[in-house]
Amino acid sequence: MDFSSKFLENAVNEVSRLPGIGKRTALRLVLHLLKQPKEHTKYLTEALTQLRNEVKSCKRCHNISDTILCDICSNSNRNEEIVCVVEDIRDVMAIENTGQYRGLYHVLGGKISPIEGVGPQNLNIESLVEKVKNKEVKELIFALSSTMEGDTTNFYIYKQIEKYDVTTSTIARGIAVGDELEYADEITLGRSIINRIPFANSLKS
Amino acid sequence: MDFSSKFLENAVNEVSRLPGIGKRTALRLVLHLLKQPKEHTKYLTEALTQLRNEVKSCKRCHNISDTILCDICSNSNRNEEIVCVVEDIRDVMAIENTGQYRGLYHVLGGKISPIEGVGPQNLNIESLVEKVKNKEVKELIFALSSTMEGDTTNFYIYKQIEKYDVTTSTIARGIAVGDELEYADEITLGRSIINRIPFANSLKS
Ligand SMILES: [Zn+2]
Ligand SMILES: [Zn+2]
Repeated sequence: MDFSSKFLENAVNEVSRLPGIGKRTALRLVLHLLKQPKEHTKYLTEALTQLRNEVKSCKRCHNISDTILCDICSNSNRNEEIVCVVEDIRDVMAIENTGQYRGLYHVLGGKISPIEGVGPQNLNIESLVEKVKNKEVKELIFALSSTMEGDTTNFYIYKQIEKYDVTTSTIARGIAVGDELEYADEITLGRSIINRIPFANSLKS
Repeated sequence: MDFSSKFLENAVNEVSRLPGIGKRTALRLVLHLLKQPKEHTKYLTEALTQLRNEVKSCKRCHNISDTILCDICSNSNRNEEIVCVVEDIRDVMAIENTGQYRGLYHVLGGKISPIEGVGPQNLNIESLVEKVKNKEVKELIFALSSTMEGDTTNFYIYKQIEKYDVTTSTIARGIAVGDELEYADEITLGRSIINRIPFANSLKS
């Protein structure tokens, strides 16, 4: 693409670095901003800057939060002894949306994936094992996507904690194997938490 | 969607105001930025802010430009007496890419579309008619998309200028009717400029 403006070229290049956004799409988005009042670009860039600079990771569960402890961890009505292990904050949002779960979460920040170069040391696994070791947790619910990477991650964590006194379960596989958790409908996802099974049982199937 | 962070919610809302970007996609893009070094967000927001505040519309052809006159209009090797009328700067980029055209452009900034509330007064038509009136132009090439709105816009301009001494042509319809100009392949688009036909002839078909 030949651009008539260096500013335009630079903006298109930066936008097209976002995942799933090609040069053509980036150009369309940027030209849209040029047709809108300057305030639109101002609000957009301010919102992104503020998010990137101000947002915190909850000290306890690694959920995205504006405060040191997230709203879920600091809610005294939640059961602190049950911890649901998820990949991503989108999974927290999806499970919260079901209204079926009253425990806490632990956000790993991804799954073990040798192909993508993600090892256990890149995930929030150590802090989870610490919680179990310190007897802060009575039950761990594994709620990762039922993909090979999800199963590998579940198993890796399970091996680290099986010697401690903790119950482990996985959400019921009402969700189709290979499906991403965040796209499951609320009812299926809600039931799969209620009908969770001991993790050791899930290894036999 | 329930967000655990107001900053996150605000950023997702702003990103999802962009055309074709839903809430889920916005969340995916924003979480990507959070996983990247802070510099990525900084470069992105700076590029958008700079573009929106610094970029100019070429005084002569309304192309996007960093200077008062764009590179095409200020190039003395171009034939100033031929002006190609296009909808959008993406069409300028597409035609320049063919390497077949040595005249100038006039960017209308859209097409007449009563449904979308775009009338002639919202487009750069008056300044085009002025150029013809002042005998700056010997030939106008209409290169709008061959859609109903494109044809309406061509015809509206034609009616304004037919009394003046100017040749009008449209690019040859090697491009399928209804197709957007910017997606045409270079060879077809290049040929359709070379084989342009008098505009009056195109009304008969
Ligand atoms: Zn938390
Ligand atoms: Zn120009």
